[in-house]
Amino acid sequence: MNFEYYMPTKLFFGPGSLEKLGTEKLPGKKALIVISAGNSMKKYGYLDRVKALLEKNNTEYCVFDKIMPNPIKAHVMEGAQMARDNGCDFVIGLGGGSSIDSAKSIAIMATNEGDYWNYIYGGSGKGKPIPNKPLPIIAITTTAGTGTESDPWTVITKEDTGEKIGLGYEFTFPYFSIIDPELMTSIPPHLTAYQGFDALFHSTEGYISNKANLMSDIFALKAIELLGKYLPRAVKNGEDLEARSMVAFANTLAGIVESTSTCTSEHAIEHSLSGLYPELPHGAGLIMISLEYYKVFADKVPDRFVKMAKALGKQDARKPSDFVDLLAELQANCGVDNLKMSDYGIKKDDLPRITKHAFDTMGQLFENDRYKLSEAETLGILEKAYK
Amino acid sequence: MNFEYYMPTKLFFGPGSLEKLGTEKLPGKKALIVISAGNSMKKYGYLDRVKALLEKNNTEYCVFDKIMPNPIKAHVMEGAQMARDNGCDFVIGLGGGSSIDSAKSIAIMATNEGDYWNYIYGGSGKGKPIPNKPLPIIAITTTAGTGTESDPWTVITKEDTGEKIGLGYEFTFPYFSIIDPELMTSIPPHLTAYQGFDALFHSTEGYISNKANLMSDIFALKAIELLGKYLPRAVKNGEDLEARSMVAFANTLAGIVESTSTCTSEHAIEHSLSGLYPELPHGAGLIMISLEYYKVFADKVPDRFVKMAKALGKQDARKPSDFVDLLAELQANCGVDNLKMSDYGIKKDDLPRITKHAFDTMGQLFENDRYKLSEAETLGILEKAYK
Repeated sequence: MNFEYYMPTKLFFGPGSLEKLGTEKLPGKKALIVISAGNSMKKYGYLDRVKALLEKNNTEYCVFDKIMPNPIKAHVMEGAQMARDNGCDFVIGLGGGSSIDSAKSIAIMATNEGDYWNYIYGGSGKGKPIPNKPLPIIAITTTAGTGTESDPWTVITKEDTGEKIGLGYEFTFPYFSIIDPELMTSIPPHLTAYQGFDALFHSTEGYISNKANLMSDIFALKAIELLGKYLPRAVKNGEDLEARSMVAFANTLAGIVESTSTCTSEHAIEHSLSGLYPELPHGAGLIMISLEYYKVFADKVPDRFVKMAKALGKQDARKPSDFVDLLAELQANCGVDNLKMSDYGIKKDDLPRITKHAFDTMGQLFENDRYKLSEAETLGILEKAYK
Repeated sequence: MNFEYYMPTKLFFGPGSLEKLGTEKLPGKKALIVISAGNSMKKYGYLDRVKALLEKNNTEYCVFDKIMPNPIKAHVMEGAQMARDNGCDFVIGLGGGSSIDSAKSIAIMATNEGDYWNYIYGGSGKGKPIPNKPLPIIAITTTAGTGTESDPWTVITKEDTGEKIGLGYEFTFPYFSIIDPELMTSIPPHLTAYQGFDALFHSTEGYISNKANLMSDIFALKAIELLGKYLPRAVKNGEDLEARSMVAFANTLAGIVESTSTCTSEHAIEHSLSGLYPELPHGAGLIMISLEYYKVFADKVPDRFVKMAKALGKQDARKPSDFVDLLAELQANCGVDNLKMSDYGIKKDDLPRITKHAFDTMGQLFENDRYKLSEAETLGILEKAYK
């Protein structure tokens, strides 16, 4: 029953809320704007709008535009150097989770010496405490997937070892976050689905985690309900602003779940997959393993599975497996029911290495499960999920 | 659909959570502990426990023990002087809403010059901006009523004019709050009921306010549900720790509603009553006017009344008036269905003055209603509610 709740980020939510960047008090005088190496922030005019709003707000900026879908340590170090060289005193992450997570990590390294991996717990990370307070962070999210706008977490891959590990503490919550669903209408259907399922699994994992509590449960069940109802609509018609808004809201709620409860081993297993195979989108990896993963846990946490099934819309759910059936149905409705590991070059032979890597790099997430998976059981999930 | 969310207070919730005071990082080296003039914090040993935990945490303190149930400006000024004279660098409010609200106002006046009423908007307040940041505030709540542990608000009465007016901004959110239901088991039944209905009305007002939004609605409906289910149990058996915990949790959620949405004119009308008649407990005053108040709004916000009726447990609610019927039933189940203004010396002749005083002092709350009450309609509510 006991819990701690802490989510100090101010949230500006809703269509048109990007305009707040031009009027709200900012936490510095010169921003490093962190965006992806892709073209979308420029093509859709979001970067130009952000620049214009900063100018309106009498604030300088420079742009770091190298972030990859699975963001890497080298770019964290390079972005931090750019922030220092240019005297930036805050960081804006503009884009999806990769850009915002990178902004958080850059904010840490802009004020701290040495290598980013010095501060990572797990794998080859040195687990040192972070001596200096990071630069303040503003998150402007153009996707609905990671929930990073309302949690302290940043997930970065060490490119030479394929370790994909999270870090977060009280000073990596954004100063404020803007969640403007109008910036999300251009996301193509398959990415909308991948990101939406990431948000769903933040909620379902947070709900079946042994760290779940009175507070996180409220956010988790509401996010599951909204995603079940609106994600297929947002996938089918990206311009459906009501559906986009509700999916964005669910994603922000899921971020608060991550701030209040925790992810479970599902995320550890997926981070191993996309850490070793960086072409695999995180959400797609989660979808690939999800049905086999939840089948294992259905019998371990039966009452919570029934409640998740009810949240997904089956009012008369009685069996834990109802949730797994509804999850499969939701994946079909979103067109992501036939994703294959083999399409991303993953070989069946490699599954034992992927399993071991999950325990080595994010073993702590297995501690959040209500049933402790063995390495053999984890491999079993991956083998059954393999196509 | 758009909203802003900001509730930066860290919450420690649950039986035994008072112990956190001995281990958590505190925001200063010397605390002013603010408690009521009554005996309960001493009698039940809460003050001694707080002192011992501060000593364990290497922190000095002094005690200001003059706060009255409807706290007054004179004690805010006196407490602030004591904080300055003793070099206190943070303030702990220990007790019910009156002590915690006073702690917030003392925190403001410990760092700012002049009179507290200089910074009040409404009535004879001068509405000046607060130049200096208040001292950090810790809230340790021993009641479940005001929600002040999770909102920025403090309500103080100017004793010479009977003006009872709220104030709150980003720096009056507590640094952290402890909500330990074990500290609530000694509250007598009638006060449990008064306080519980205050929390209920923070939720219902926040839900029918024109400032209600996606986020506040989640907290409001959950708080209404929990209070409908657990408040009668907590009233009947104060030692029922599950019921106490759920009522305490609902109250904290209701505080977040006040941070995210707003109160409505119901609170303006009651502040006028207990501002002019300080013997009247705030929760009792709310209960007295509530049925007539909600009867007026049932037809103005019908869909939201049906949802509130469902939250109160009537799954098949269809009519807005179902909520009013369930509210009357809940009051009967809590033994507070026959409270009389006349028992507190309020004369029927005085109702026009009370009405005018509500508009004069907290007229801004009427702006949060979805239907704008006239003074005549407000007087009508008071006249029908009068016994």
